[in-house]
Amino acid sequence: MSATRYTYLGPEGTFTEAALRTLPEAATRELVPMVSVPAALDAVRNGDAAAALVPIENSVEGGVTATLDELASGTPLMIYREVLLPIAFALLVRPGTRLSDVRTVTGHPVAQPQVRNWLRANLPDALWESAASNADGARLVKEGKYDAAFAGEFAAATYGLEALVTDIHDAQNAETRFVLVGRPARPAAPTGADRTSVVIWLGTDRPGALLELLQEFAVRGVNLMLIQSRPTGEGIGNYCFAVDAEGHITERRVAEALMGLKRTAPKVRFLGSYPRAGVTPDKVSKPRAGTSDADFTEASDWLGRCQDGRG
Amino acid sequence: MSATRYTYLGPEGTFTEAALRTLPEAATRELVPMVSVPAALDAVRNGDAAAALVPIENSVEGGVTATLDELASGTPLMIYREVLLPIAFALLVRPGTRLSDVRTVTGHPVAQPQVRNWLRANLPDALWESAASNADGARLVKEGKYDAAFAGEFAAATYGLEALVTDIHDAQNAETRFVLVGRPARPAAPTGADRTSVVIWLGTDRPGALLELLQEFAVRGVNLMLIQSRPTGEGIGNYCFAVDAEGHITERRVAEALMGLKRTAPKVRFLGSYPRAGVTPDKVSKPRAGTSDADFTEASDWLGRCQDGRG
Amino acid sequence: MSATRYTYLGPEGTFTEAALRTLPEAATRELVPMVSVPAALDAVRNGDAAAALVPIENSVEGGVTATLDELASGTPLMIYREVLLPIAFALLVRPGTRLSDVRTVTGHPVAQPQVRNWLRANLPDALWESAASNADGARLVKEGKYDAAFAGEFAAATYGLEALVTDIHDAQNAETRFVLVGRPARPAAPTGADRTSVVIWLGTDRPGALLELLQEFAVRGVNLMLIQSRPTGEGIGNYCFAVDAEGHITERRVAEALMGLKRTAPKVRFLGSYPRAGVTPDKVSKPRAGTSDADFTEASDWLGRCQDGRG
Amino acid sequence: MSATRYTYLGPEGTFTEAALRTLPEAATRELVPMVSVPAALDAVRNGDAAAALVPIENSVEGGVTATLDELASGTPLMIYREVLLPIAFALLVRPGTRLSDVRTVTGHPVAQPQVRNWLRANLPDALWESAASNADGARLVKEGKYDAAFAGEFAAATYGLEALVTDIHDAQNAETRFVLVGRPARPAAPTGADRTSVVIWLGTDRPGALLELLQEFAVRGVNLMLIQSRPTGEGIGNYCFAVDAEGHITERRVAEALMGLKRTAPKVRFLGSYPRAGVTPDKVSKPRAGTSDADFTEASDWLGRCQDGRG
Repeated sequence: MSATRYTYLGPEGTFTEAALRTLPEAATRELVPMVSVPAALDAVRNGDAAAALVPIENSVEGGVTATLDELASGTPLMIYREVLLPIAFALLVRPGTRLSDVRTVTGHPVAQPQVRNWLRANLPDALWESAASNADGARLVKEGKYDAAFAGEFAAATYGLEALVTDIHDAQNAETRFVLVGRPARPAAPTGADRTSVVIWLGTDRPGALLELLQEFAVRGVNLMLIQSRPTGEGIGNYCFAVDAEGHITERRVAEALMGLKRTAPKVRFLGSYPRAGVTPDKVSKPRAGTSDADFTEASDWLGRCQDGRG
Repeated sequence: MSATRYTYLGPEGTFTEAALRTLPEAATRELVPMVSVPAALDAVRNGDAAAALVPIENSVEGGVTATLDELASGTPLMIYREVLLPIAFALLVRPGTRLSDVRTVTGHPVAQPQVRNWLRANLPDALWESAASNADGARLVKEGKYDAAFAGEFAAATYGLEALVTDIHDAQNAETRFVLVGRPARPAAPTGADRTSVVIWLGTDRPGALLELLQEFAVRGVNLMLIQSRPTGEGIGNYCFAVDAEGHITERRVAEALMGLKRTAPKVRFLGSYPRAGVTPDKVSKPRAGTSDADFTEASDWLGRCQDGRG
Repeated sequence: MSATRYTYLGPEGTFTEAALRTLPEAATRELVPMVSVPAALDAVRNGDAAAALVPIENSVEGGVTATLDELASGTPLMIYREVLLPIAFALLVRPGTRLSDVRTVTGHPVAQPQVRNWLRANLPDALWESAASNADGARLVKEGKYDAAFAGEFAAATYGLEALVTDIHDAQNAETRFVLVGRPARPAAPTGADRTSVVIWLGTDRPGALLELLQEFAVRGVNLMLIQSRPTGEGIGNYCFAVDAEGHITERRVAEALMGLKRTAPKVRFLGSYPRAGVTPDKVSKPRAGTSDADFTEASDWLGRCQDGRG
Repeated sequence: MSATRYTYLGPEGTFTEAALRTLPEAATRELVPMVSVPAALDAVRNGDAAAALVPIENSVEGGVTATLDELASGTPLMIYREVLLPIAFALLVRPGTRLSDVRTVTGHPVAQPQVRNWLRANLPDALWESAASNADGARLVKEGKYDAAFAGEFAAATYGLEALVTDIHDAQNAETRFVLVGRPARPAAPTGADRTSVVIWLGTDRPGALLELLQEFAVRGVNLMLIQSRPTGEGIGNYCFAVDAEGHITERRVAEALMGLKRTAPKVRFLGSYPRAGVTPDKVSKPRAGTSDADFTEASDWLGRCQDGRG
């Protein structure tokens, strides 16, 4: 029953699964791990799943390029929710292994830069080899291929391992942002603390194109939260930009900025407007003077009066 | 009958009257000279006249400040037409006067800088005194107060004078732009070659306010034709700006820019959208890519599809 | 002796003379009234005078166009000082004249808009005629040509008239800014509260040219105090801009902005850096972060280290 | 002898080695493969090697984050050369393996998105697992752990494998840009076709900070070739930007833009000015009017004259 099935970047025991389980509705869905972000999203595209949870931004590694590229191309999808998860690794070992026994370690390539300093300080001689996922690394440790794996502490039970060290993270406040992706539909209603995601392609021959793109937002007082360049695949130096803006597509300053982009950029893809995780409306900065919905309505009324000769 | 009465900056014989007579409808109107721009406009405000023709911009002197200030303050008025008139002066004298007889000359203060070089070359010793208008100068010559007056050649007959020298103008292509002003009503339909006039007040405490004002136009691809600062009367350094933009208020790039100004500036006054004199639509530069009405409509349709989940 | 002679916009009894007499050095100079701004400045140009005091900006009328145009063209001159003078008019009459006797009034055309409301309220039926200067109006009253003249109260004695009403000014805080102009020389040393004046010509074919001009200032954190468009005389719509910026040419943010203008505008004329009147350094807003001279020096040192491989 | 030793991202047989061997000087250097980008660069930092060649930008994957992050942090290094290498993969197998025998494939995680479409079309059921490098994948195939590896065709000989399929690349014109990195020293002389690399940190509290950063380049006419956001590690939404600009630090428009960044951004790191690969000076776009070195010199001379009173 696809309507009750959510896929996620698997295998079981990943941070993505942990993030997914923070959603109340997860309790009533069939949660299906997939081998990759494309696989998780393709299940949504072809109707096998109602939604997919995938990582999109990481405070250490930045935008998750596999996710950004999948959302930017192929059949359109939309983001409906986001989940923020603090990231701390545990060093998982087979029961009985001591730190001094660890010669080889594994984990997802994204984990490596997040534990690099810890490794230098605590296991300077250990050999790192990448695994397809953190959970997969745990499985390989279970099978005896490596001595230890970096993964979420919650993965220990799944793979019959032991968390030798916990709370490992080079950076303070490391966290990952995940998004729940579904087929395009009407966005959720605005909450007062929302994020709008788009991908914008620039014309190849305009040096100031990014500047102009940013001005479409700035002139309407729309703040940006993420600007991530991604190659278009058409040769070195050709980029599109994944941009997250504060606000909701139904807010008029956001709507006008999006239309401005649509008019001036060769291509824009709307990825959704959705509630921000961990931010309540009272913590969101007030719109700049002159850019609230009331200001837009008043200006629009004034324009009507001018056009009627009652300005 | 006020509906058939047009006032103009008098007295009879001014360039303004000559400009007014180029309008076809002038033939069927009662044309009434007034002593000043405020007087001509007040007659419209209080219903004594249907419209007033007043000078607004001069290629030598710039914006005509009396007109700009009157339009910016008081009961709102609107501009419906513009007239361009090449400006060349004649030196009017009493019949029989020779150039070597001329010791004193007069004319409107605005005329002086337009004939300064000619005076230096041809009448270096003549004493200039200002008159209330060029036509009034002619009258004073007639009365014997001065030896010669600069005025339009057409004023000679009115005052029984002789044009001793004609086609005097220091600058090449000197011309004055006049506007026909009435009480606010629906602007004339767009012609494809229109001008939109507004007055914009800047907040006093924002050093980059003019830059932001210009960006409201620039980001929507609206070209500016006139930017004239005028003091607000609230002390040195406090200015509002009279701005003329290419296009018509019913064109969407213009409308959105006007609404942007309305939202962000403390005060905006719409002075009208009206056909440009001397420019046909085929001579107007095409809107910048992405700023035509069709582009706006397409972007608006796309936004609607995004909001419906069909983006 | 030209070195001790200062000209000013005369005749005797003008506000300009009053402004000039506020300068300490005026006590030891020969003060010579001239019939016009061009005449006052030409005396400096040809060596007949060391300097000239002329009005340049008025809180009611804006930039004084005759002065701006004279400074923008012809042999270059430079501004060395500014003087601010509150403007209030007295109604000067021949001794014995009562208000109810006044049928005709005169004054400089610039005075008219500053007393218009007072006239409407107090002398609604009086006929206005312009004089060549306020002082000249006083002279004409003395000679019996008009009943009353608007002029500075200080002019009464000069012309044997009586100040029937004093402190007339439609606008609160009306004041005029005058500048002391001399032949080009090294500007006075910076005081911490300085003004830099330039005239900038825009290319005719670039719609965003003014925006770019303003960005040359904005990107270096230089605030603008005056932006006055002036026609270039090359046809309607062709303008140059008189711009006053906060700061001194020897301050690096100002210097870099000026060089940026010089590089990108077709023509720039430097009119001087000089102390601001009525503002002490402690009242001047601090330069924006990153734009002080110390910041420029530090950045320049850093660049040198980068070029030496020690960045 | 460190002066003759170059490290590179190993192991032997990587594209990085192939890129390094295109440098003439490589023939006379000891080329040492390292297990990671950090290891290759640390060898330079600690004096074990004179330089390191590492990948920095890929037309499919964008900026190589490990390289960008290493250059942005730690002991400063500088870029002296760049190498462009077209990227096409070969499917390396043990001799005798047929395509239909391939059940498992491996390769560097970066390779996966570049061969994804090919895999879908030709080996839809094959299971992908990531290897530490393309060359390491080849080694694992040699050892029998996987059936096939994506790597450069040149790696086949090194590992005793066979190229079953060659010229595999999902994207047309796929190429990777590598940089030769050394300890800081004077940059190479400008060639007329140069690239300047910097990393710029934005203040956390300024929504328009990126816009301002881009304007520092734009106002001086400096074109940008790469803008890559990288998290600073201080929480979601905190980014620095790796920016590549056209031109050389000794060119004045570039120098002034860099100083502008240094003044206004919290932190800037200069990564070098170096000749562009594959572009000759005649193919580089001319500087915008007013931004050539000659324009800067002329403006600087003019400023000096103004300051001397000879403007």
